[in-house]
Amino acid sequence: MPVPGAVVIGQSGGPTAVINQTLIGVVKACRANPKVFTKVLGAIHGIQGILDGKFHDFANETDANLELVAGTPSAALKSVRHKATPEDGKKIFARFKELGVRYFFYIGGNDTAETTNIINELAHAEGYDLTCFHCPKTIDNDLRVTDHCPGYGSAAKFVTQAFMGDNLDNRSLSGIKINIVMGRNAGWLTAASVLARQFPGDGPHLIYCPEADFSLDAFCADVEAIYRKLGRCVVAVSEGIHGPNGQEIVTTGEVDSHGNKQLSGTGAMGDFLSDVLKKHLAKTWPEKKHRIRADTFGYLQRCFPGVISETDASEARLAGSAAVAAALADVKSGSVAFKRNDGAYGVTTFITPLPTVAKETKPMPREWLNAAGNDVVSEIVLPYLKPLVGTLPAIGQLKI
Amino acid sequence: MPVPGAVVIGQSGGPTAVINQTLIGVVKACRANPKVFTKVLGAIHGIQGILDGKFHDFANETDANLELVAGTPSAALKSVRHKATPEDGKKIFARFKELGVRYFFYIGGNDTAETTNIINELAHAEGYDLTCFHCPKTIDNDLRVTDHCPGYGSAAKFVTQAFMGDNLDNRSLSGIKINIVMGRNAGWLTAASVLARQFPGDGPHLIYCPEADFSLDAFCADVEAIYRKLGRCVVAVSEGIHGPNGQEIVTTGEVDSHGNKQLSGTGAMGDFLSDVLKKHLAKTWPEKKHRIRADTFGYLQRCFPGVISETDASEARLAGSAAVAAALADVKSGSVAFKRNDGAYGVTTFITPLPTVAKETKPMPREWLNAAGNDVVSEIVLPYLKPLVGTLPAIGQLKI
Repeated sequence: MPVPGAVVIGQSGGPTAVINQTLIGVVKACRANPKVFTKVLGAIHGIQGILDGKFHDFANETDANLELVAGTPSAALKSVRHKATPEDGKKIFARFKELGVRYFFYIGGNDTAETTNIINELAHAEGYDLTCFHCPKTIDNDLRVTDHCPGYGSAAKFVTQAFMGDNLDNRSLSGIKINIVMGRNAGWLTAASVLARQFPGDGPHLIYCPEADFSLDAFCADVEAIYRKLGRCVVAVSEGIHGPNGQEIVTTGEVDSHGNKQLSGTGAMGDFLSDVLKKHLAKTWPEKKHRIRADTFGYLQRCFPGVISETDASEARLAGSAAVAAALADVKSGSVAFKRNDGAYGVTTFITPLPTVAKETKPMPREWLNAAGNDVVSEIVLPYLKPLVGTLPAIGQLKI
Repeated sequence: MPVPGAVVIGQSGGPTAVINQTLIGVVKACRANPKVFTKVLGAIHGIQGILDGKFHDFANETDANLELVAGTPSAALKSVRHKATPEDGKKIFARFKELGVRYFFYIGGNDTAETTNIINELAHAEGYDLTCFHCPKTIDNDLRVTDHCPGYGSAAKFVTQAFMGDNLDNRSLSGIKINIVMGRNAGWLTAASVLARQFPGDGPHLIYCPEADFSLDAFCADVEAIYRKLGRCVVAVSEGIHGPNGQEIVTTGEVDSHGNKQLSGTGAMGDFLSDVLKKHLAKTWPEKKHRIRADTFGYLQRCFPGVISETDASEARLAGSAAVAAALADVKSGSVAFKRNDGAYGVTTFITPLPTVAKETKPMPREWLNAAGNDVVSEIVLPYLKPLVGTLPAIGQLKI
């Protein structure tokens, strides 16, 4: 039997379009079991809120407002990028004792799973009876164990629609267009651009992911070949591309407390690749004036209201309620993961130990990219992606 | 009585999310009057297609496919940025005579209106009986005479939703966020970011448009003041901002055949403003680590499938059919414009002479910005904008 006690929920890391679905999934499942979950508290800015004593009591929220919040992108409890230290652990348990907290649900990516694991281990070491769950979320789709991650489907939908529109734009006013897509170490989100291909000749014509080493020479040759053939070229490039042995393509500055480098929030990579191509074509094709543009999709990809995959939204809700269901079944810790059902698309949840999800991430398999490393293998990627992204806008073209 | 003859339709300039609505508006209205409009031809890549003899015969298109195309962003006939010369005129009329063309509809912005006007004047000079209409489109909303332009409402919807999401993102992980919005010489599109404010304290907290002179010192002081007060700051900046006497803030390279400078397709402006702020805060607030990011919305703003204002779509259709209606009423030339009805929102179309729309653009009135030039006057901008943008996603927040 699960012990009665208060619940603390937090959100951590980069927000997604559906992270509040998971939050509300936890809150509503807890509210449905008031004998076990005596109080439901939200930690403002994740564990920083626990350390600072800043909580939100969900007793003050109506179901109608919770549903409105669930459909709203970004972390309603506000987020944080902070890795728990042993000293933090002591402060956290002091606070938990004071509030009678026996359940901790932490929504986030691999860094968040790591912090959840640290808190779980510290609780054991301190002999504090705490049930500790990590609920997955990341647009990067790079968590281990699970088939895919809540947040990914909606970001993939945004990226797909962005490439659909940009391919049409580029078809209308020809030239070379480079689009930089989020994804720290994994190409999952960049790979989603393949879904934008609706008609023969549609872009993106080239897709570069971090799972294959990137070479500027090969990039220039690839782009020029397509551009000479079609008169235009749309390119998807992951912000995480690198040369052999992880060599950086463009160096940017900042590093967070988990050691992650800043890749987004600057146009540096796109502008650099654009300049490289301009110089290359000035040599190989000087007689033509070339129109070369780069866009960096940036933060729009992860929190765009109105571009949300329904599958992703309902699965994100499930990632929250499944954690509470496990706690009610007296499971003491773990991370919620999805297994894809056989046959018609659907998922089954299961609980995986926290260390299996914490820290390390899962790149896309190298075999999902072609040998040249400049495209995905559609036969593998499309069946995986399509159900996660859901319905896309209908695209028409004249019989030109 | 209008003379029977073939029709040529073209699309020109930067595409929009609804430019095909106008195209299909023209096509369907012409097809409904086959005795007058004996043939309906699309010029591929605008007047370039006329010069090159590249046409699409709309007789080959089903109504169902036309409707699918109408709902698809970007120019289905492909676009061009080319200003007609007197020599072009001779070639165009030779082609028109050959094909029996008596009607020319050209969909685009002020540059397109200029080209339509040139062709109209050349036709008069040559004594060639040609009916010449310009149908408005521009996300910049900077055409003269008309209340607003087809294409603007959908781009404004994208910008609004982008700022809604980005405000939530920034609220979740605090810092300073700069977003660069399209709009060559006018702040109309940047001003649309104001619609994103849903709750007290919501961003964008500052809005900079080209209609007020931009100063880096004032910008740094404005941002720092908000940032010190709220702990965060979301800023909307038009790509067209400039110092006194049009002085450039950041210099970029290319210029098109109409003399327009390249502003989009690079992250240069955002990265520059971000660096300026970093240096400023390193001096004025060195004890804190500052998170400063910039995104350039880029081409996504103008052609994003799935983010289309229904008002904009239906008005864009009207801009096409109204031009055909005028031609049927024996009006020989002009540009379609909208007058906003009194009372409940709606528009009435009228025809304005081509020279009143060609060349010069219409900036947003300076009075629509506050005295400091760092925000819009909501009481003026919101009533103008809301009906054009239409329904927005519902945003909720916890009672924190």
